[in-house]
Amino acid sequence: MKMNNTFIKTLREAPKEETSTNGALLTRAGFIHKEMAGIYDYLPFGIRVLEKIKNIVREELNAIGCEEVLMSTLQNPEPWEKTGRFSDAEVDIWFKTELASGGTLGLAPTHEEPMVEMLKNYISSYKDLPLAIYQFQTKFRNEKRAKSGIMRGREFLMKDLYSFHTSEEDLDRFYEKAEQAYKNVFERIGLGDCTYETFASGGIFSKYSHEFQTFLPVGEDTVYYNEDRSLVFNKEVFTDEILAEFGTTKGKFSETRAAEVGNIFKLMLKFSDPLELNYTDENNNLQKIYMGCYGIGISRAMGVVAEKYADEKGLVWPESIAPFKYYVVGIGDEGAEEAVKIYKGHEELMILDDRDVRPGEKFADADLIGIPYRVVISEKTLAEDSLEVTSRATGEPKIVKIDKFLSNL
Amino acid sequence: MKMNNTFIKTLREAPKEETSTNGALLTRAGFIHKEMAGIYDYLPFGIRVLEKIKNIVREELNAIGCEEVLMSTLQNPEPWEKTGRFSDAEVDIWFKTELASGGTLGLAPTHEEPMVEMLKNYISSYKDLPLAIYQFQTKFRNEKRAKSGIMRGREFLMKDLYSFHTSEEDLDRFYEKAEQAYKNVFERIGLGDCTYETFASGGIFSKYSHEFQTFLPVGEDTVYYNEDRSLVFNKEVFTDEILAEFGTTKGKFSETRAAEVGNIFKLMLKFSDPLELNYTDENNNLQKIYMGCYGIGISRAMGVVAEKYADEKGLVWPESIAPFKYYVVGIGDEGAEEAVKIYKGHEELMILDDRDVRPGEKFADADLIGIPYRVVISEKTLAEDSLEVTSRATGEPKIVKIDKFLSNL
Repeated sequence: MKMNNTFIKTLREAPKEETSTNGALLTRAGFIHKEMAGIYDYLPFGIRVLEKIKNIVREELNAIGCEEVLMSTLQNPEPWEKTGRFSDAEVDIWFKTELASGGTLGLAPTHEEPMVEMLKNYISSYKDLPLAIYQFQTKFRNEKRAKSGIMRGREFLMKDLYSFHTSEEDLDRFYEKAEQAYKNVFERIGLGDCTYETFASGGIFSKYSHEFQTFLPVGEDTVYYNEDRSLVFNKEVFTDEILAEFGTTKGKFSETRAAEVGNIFKLMLKFSDPLELNYTDENNNLQKIYMGCYGIGISRAMGVVAEKYADEKGLVWPESIAPFKYYVVGIGDEGAEEAVKIYKGHEELMILDDRDVRPGEKFADADLIGIPYRVVISEKTLAEDSLEVTSRATGEPKIVKIDKFLSNL
Repeated sequence: MKMNNTFIKTLREAPKEETSTNGALLTRAGFIHKEMAGIYDYLPFGIRVLEKIKNIVREELNAIGCEEVLMSTLQNPEPWEKTGRFSDAEVDIWFKTELASGGTLGLAPTHEEPMVEMLKNYISSYKDLPLAIYQFQTKFRNEKRAKSGIMRGREFLMKDLYSFHTSEEDLDRFYEKAEQAYKNVFERIGLGDCTYETFASGGIFSKYSHEFQTFLPVGEDTVYYNEDRSLVFNKEVFTDEILAEFGTTKGKFSETRAAEVGNIFKLMLKFSDPLELNYTDENNNLQKIYMGCYGIGISRAMGVVAEKYADEKGLVWPESIAPFKYYVVGIGDEGAEEAVKIYKGHEELMILDDRDVRPGEKFADADLIGIPYRVVISEKTLAEDSLEVTSRATGEPKIVKIDKFLSNL
């Protein structure tokens, strides 16, 4: 991408009411635009990050046999009434709307009910199971407050996966695969070394569920971890009784703030029971279907990565989800000419800063946008057929021969 | 994709209330699932078609210098109130919802207002123009009736593009490029020979706008065309007065039904005026920005293609947007074994029907799903190191050497 070809400009200031670091920096660097609290637009850089996170999640889920669909936002109340979840008393974050032809619809805050209803067309026999189906879909939650940038949205992008099984044992087998896929995802998007699988309440149907919590000072959750971080509990389950089950005590735990980037949950029969999602077994007997659900907040994960790695100069993206890998700046006429040559054919990998502004301004924008490597070509580097590659994360510059740089791309 | 690995099964019957051909066939073939009238889920085959159409549109728009963003669904009423379009009297298809913290929001039926508001952060000088920005985003329209399958949605996927210019002349230049890009899109998705650029009303700011109308018996619009179809008018502008301007008369026109798959519109100052989207010119004078908008109904286009080419056996996809290009069936043990070999490494190109059902059932499903080429490998074809490739569109079979088939993939 050429800077002269994008409408995005870095902004000196974020809107005053944008108090979160991720919201302010992502706005200033041209990734997002705030419509209202918790409601954002994604600009060209932002879309690229979202798509990269989505593709990593998609790869990991497809690898364990999941299939992708896209469910609707507008929700027929019927199946939700059967599970008791259309009531505002039960689920207090619904956005609801009136259909012109009559009736109230909801904007999906999650998709268990329509997923189960849809699958009644496709599951009849044990031969149809197990199944694991996911989507990337905008979710709507009518939060009273939303002050954490894209870390808490009223409208946000989520990956939600649902799995369906003939038995709890089969659900457990898949649950373990999903756990591993989630670890792979967080590793690959750059949150591996600060994200911990955390025990959380399992509701009435399972003992525990698991959250994936990224330790982060501005996280909205409180979690408790032991010294080697092999055990992490959220607030709900950090009780003497539960710790005793794990052979430990409160004194061995420290408290920290964290952001929940994913969760996995054994739903068991919670939805298949009231919605009558059944199958017939080998003996032609009607049986109930066991279910699991598995979420990752895609836009939240983007916000958490932004928040986690930001420094005083701006954003710092891991290579895997950076909008571009290189930020190319040519200094002087010769440098600028060579920069164009290097850029050519690498439009998806590089930003070429071809603007008519001082190099210092370009460097500052490269830092603010957080592109992993800044590449500078000047008369001085050209004298040695080289260019200078500086890591955004470490600030460390390296002189690299142009040939070598190009052949390593 | 292997048929044994997807949860999709073809269905004998579509829901009774699904009266449209596209809705019924797309449901039976496993592309969509109906939630309510005008509200559909997209299943694995359906997602693939949508993504292919999106990619074609994206390529054509990027080629004329457009940039992609993603605006929010939930709409702050403020800018819409300034243009008078938040009122239900003015725009009668709003879905509205209440924010828990107070206030009414809308679900975007289109995005002119937020797009203009967002750009006020990015446009200040003539140097920032022209700009052309698009998105693929779900739109919500509270239609009283929706009986045309995915050809008319209450919730549907649209590509909307907005362009911004210093003058009407510059807008005109871009408008022509967009016209050509649209022709390319409809050509590439298989609607080229039945889609006509149609004169429509320009509203109060322009004489005409243009619709792209696909002639289709079940289309919801009525249009009028002359013998060589060089002139097509929609109902609004098919008047003696306007025809006289074109040197023709009503008698030279025939009437037909059509589905609007795209439209382009010179908005001029309609939105930039009330929302105060201005720029400063070379002399530092504040000037108004000229605007155009350009829509393509992505899910509607999918429905129109489905509807247009369907025959008594099912769907017939053009290669460019088919979910897969080949439907591979091995007959007998040897045939099945060879089919697996051919499939390997071509998972994105082929469906391997590895189900334990009769070949006839596989052939019927290949036809219903509408995959462009059915590939059959049997003892008989193997005796000649060959396979049989049958075109879904023509029904014509060809015997092709396996080596040649593979090297041509």
